[in-house]
Amino acid sequence: MTPPAPARDDLVRNQGVTAAAGFKASGVAAGLKASGNLDVALVVNEGPDHAAAGVFTRNQVKAAPVLWSQQVLTTGRLRAVVLNSGGANACTGPGGFQDTHATAEHTAATLSGWGTGTGAAEVAVCSTGLIGDRLPMDKLLPGVSEAVHELAGGLGGGFDAARAVMTTDTVPKQAAVQADGFTVGGFAKGAGMLAPSLATMLVVLTTDAVADAAVLDAALREACRTTFDRLDVDGATSTNDTVLLLGSGASEHTPTAGELTAAVTAVCDDLAAQLMADAEGATKHVTITVSGARTEDEAVAVARTVARDSLVKTALFGSDPNWGRVLAAVGMAPVALEPDRIDVSFDGHPVCLGGVGAPGAREADLSAERISLEIALGLGDATASIRTTDLSHGYVEENSAYSS
Amino acid sequence: MTPPAPARDDLVRNQGVTAAAGFKASGVAAGLKASGNLDVALVVNEGPDHAAAGVFTRNQVKAAPVLWSQQVLTTGRLRAVVLNSGGANACTGPGGFQDTHATAEHTAATLSGWGTGTGAAEVAVCSTGLIGDRLPMDKLLPGVSEAVHELAGGLGGGFDAARAVMTTDTVPKQAAVQADGFTVGGFAKGAGMLAPSLATMLVVLTTDAVADAAVLDAALREACRTTFDRLDVDGATSTNDTVLLLGSGASEHTPTAGELTAAVTAVCDDLAAQLMADAEGATKHVTITVSGARTEDEAVAVARTVARDSLVKTALFGSDPNWGRVLAAVGMAPVALEPDRIDVSFDGHPVCLGGVGAPGAREADLSAERISLEIALGLGDATASIRTTDLSHGYVEENSAYSS
Repeated sequence: MTPPAPARDDLVRNQGVTAAAGFKASGVAAGLKASGNLDVALVVNEGPDHAAAGVFTRNQVKAAPVLWSQQVLTTGRLRAVVLNSGGANACTGPGGFQDTHATAEHTAATLSGWGTGTGAAEVAVCSTGLIGDRLPMDKLLPGVSEAVHELAGGLGGGFDAARAVMTTDTVPKQAAVQADGFTVGGFAKGAGMLAPSLATMLVVLTTDAVADAAVLDAALREACRTTFDRLDVDGATSTNDTVLLLGSGASEHTPTAGELTAAVTAVCDDLAAQLMADAEGATKHVTITVSGARTEDEAVAVARTVARDSLVKTALFGSDPNWGRVLAAVGMAPVALEPDRIDVSFDGHPVCLGGVGAPGAREADLSAERISLEIALGLGDATASIRTTDLSHGYVEENSAYSS
Repeated sequence: MTPPAPARDDLVRNQGVTAAAGFKASGVAAGLKASGNLDVALVVNEGPDHAAAGVFTRNQVKAAPVLWSQQVLTTGRLRAVVLNSGGANACTGPGGFQDTHATAEHTAATLSGWGTGTGAAEVAVCSTGLIGDRLPMDKLLPGVSEAVHELAGGLGGGFDAARAVMTTDTVPKQAAVQADGFTVGGFAKGAGMLAPSLATMLVVLTTDAVADAAVLDAALREACRTTFDRLDVDGATSTNDTVLLLGSGASEHTPTAGELTAAVTAVCDDLAAQLMADAEGATKHVTITVSGARTEDEAVAVARTVARDSLVKTALFGSDPNWGRVLAAVGMAPVALEPDRIDVSFDGHPVCLGGVGAPGAREADLSAERISLEIALGLGDATASIRTTDLSHGYVEENSAYSS
């Protein structure tokens, strides 16, 4: 049974992480970004509960803040998340790890000074930006102090935090849903290096539902599996991917596991769609749906192989219904196939039937910004979709002139 | 022990498939290409031997000529190879396979009419071009007849055949080496859809060495493993990849397996370098060398993961020594790593030592057209290299406007 979609409301949506009761947030400009834009964000859980769960990058090269946050999450408790843009603090060695530790210590001490008693072991840290440089701690720590000072609920706090984590993002990304008796909200950043294992991004989610860490963890993993894990812009997975879910229990309502998972999934799905829409240089937003697979995992594997194929992606940029490239990409998926059973459609327009071109296939109109690519394998009943984008001049331009 | 490199000679090199004794070739314009350029090629082995070996695409979606040629190669004998550009004859169903069969039949019958007795089962067929359309047989078969008429040895035949298989290639690609007592030559086509499982291309190699099909097969597989299989321009593997090696025995010289493998490898290496140099839209020619791996296969896996990373490739296009993206790509390779042992250099200039940025890393000069990217894993003694290119505006331009 599919649970009913939670009602959405723009006012709630635009509060993001502060939509749920028990949370405050802030975003300040600490001078990490040359532009002078906001670059330090803080999300604080005022309780009464402090349960938390996290999912992290599968990249073996993990940034210092990922190593730190994985460690503190083993307790299933978080009071705060401090985030910075303007530097990933990845590949920075033991010194970089000490910087993350110092950031958590400073956050905890400053919060305690303002009346929220906490220790560094209850503070997660997230960083995003260029890989390889140490963070300017002389700017970051005063920024954290200011972020504590600026903490606010309602519209302002969530919005400022969402802006402070932006890198090449052009818009802040927030979402929230009010479910029956509780609320889930969140923000996300990410515009490039977007691939599986979490679509290279930072996401902080909050809920006022009453739920222990294990329940939050199960809901978060299931939500990520079907949303962020199925967004693949360029096949590149970052060193810093982090998705956190904090529960305050402030609603005093205990949803069922299914209700909580549905609400968290709805927020993640909304944020994933926003990440795709803002992907670097993208001119097309493409949903690749593979049906007729033996298993859901095989459907995902085929869709992901097509989503990563440079020739399919450049054809989409050119609005070219080049279904032969789709077949060639499908044929390289790590799944046993029957090529003469494969059907392909663009936006419901059949271009390939039984592995052979359909009449009028070259005339399919792909000029729209949103494209649905449907691939039926004829092997079973499983279906899955991957969200991706085209490979455009804008992507090449933006990514050939990022660091220097 | 590395065998000595065979001597090369431009006159020999420019004969390509007709450099070895016992071979004739031709290229004609049959009207398959709208441009009116050459589009049908023929290579004939006049013996006395007719041993042959082939290696084909690993794509599960295989073009009709691949299915045909794999079948005829099971005998280890070939008299002729007929090739066409202007259409891949892939995803064309049973009708497309009948077209390939008819092409082989017509080639055999025409050759027999000119005194070279052969049957269709001794004729391999290769096709390249757009996937999904049937070939215009009313043009192709007369073209085959003309190609038989035009067969020639020496400089002319090999050169015309090499030109007739070009698609988006800008130059014909030929190579040949004179070893001790025998010669190996060949041509190649391929400029896009270049990836492992043979770098999406057609290659015909010839030798006048005396060698049976099993010896040719072993030499060809070893040569492909270290040359074409380590060229990865865009990660896309075609439906039509074919590499054939034909032996005439006309030199009456029987080389050792090592001598034959060395000569075939030298020709394949030369052709692979030419394929990289002519890759669609490439502005950089990059060799990624991974050392310190536990096994050669693991070294290849790491190098290939980096070679396919869009963010590494766009950084190279921008001459940006963004070693953080290299580390992030390495971290996603399907190999167990120790991130804090990884060193990275560009052209011998260290940019990352022990997983951390080296002093002056951002100043590495990548403005040259040829770039060497060296990655040392610190895990073992195995080394391997992959040839690749950058991801440029030219690649996007060429591939967003190919079929329509």
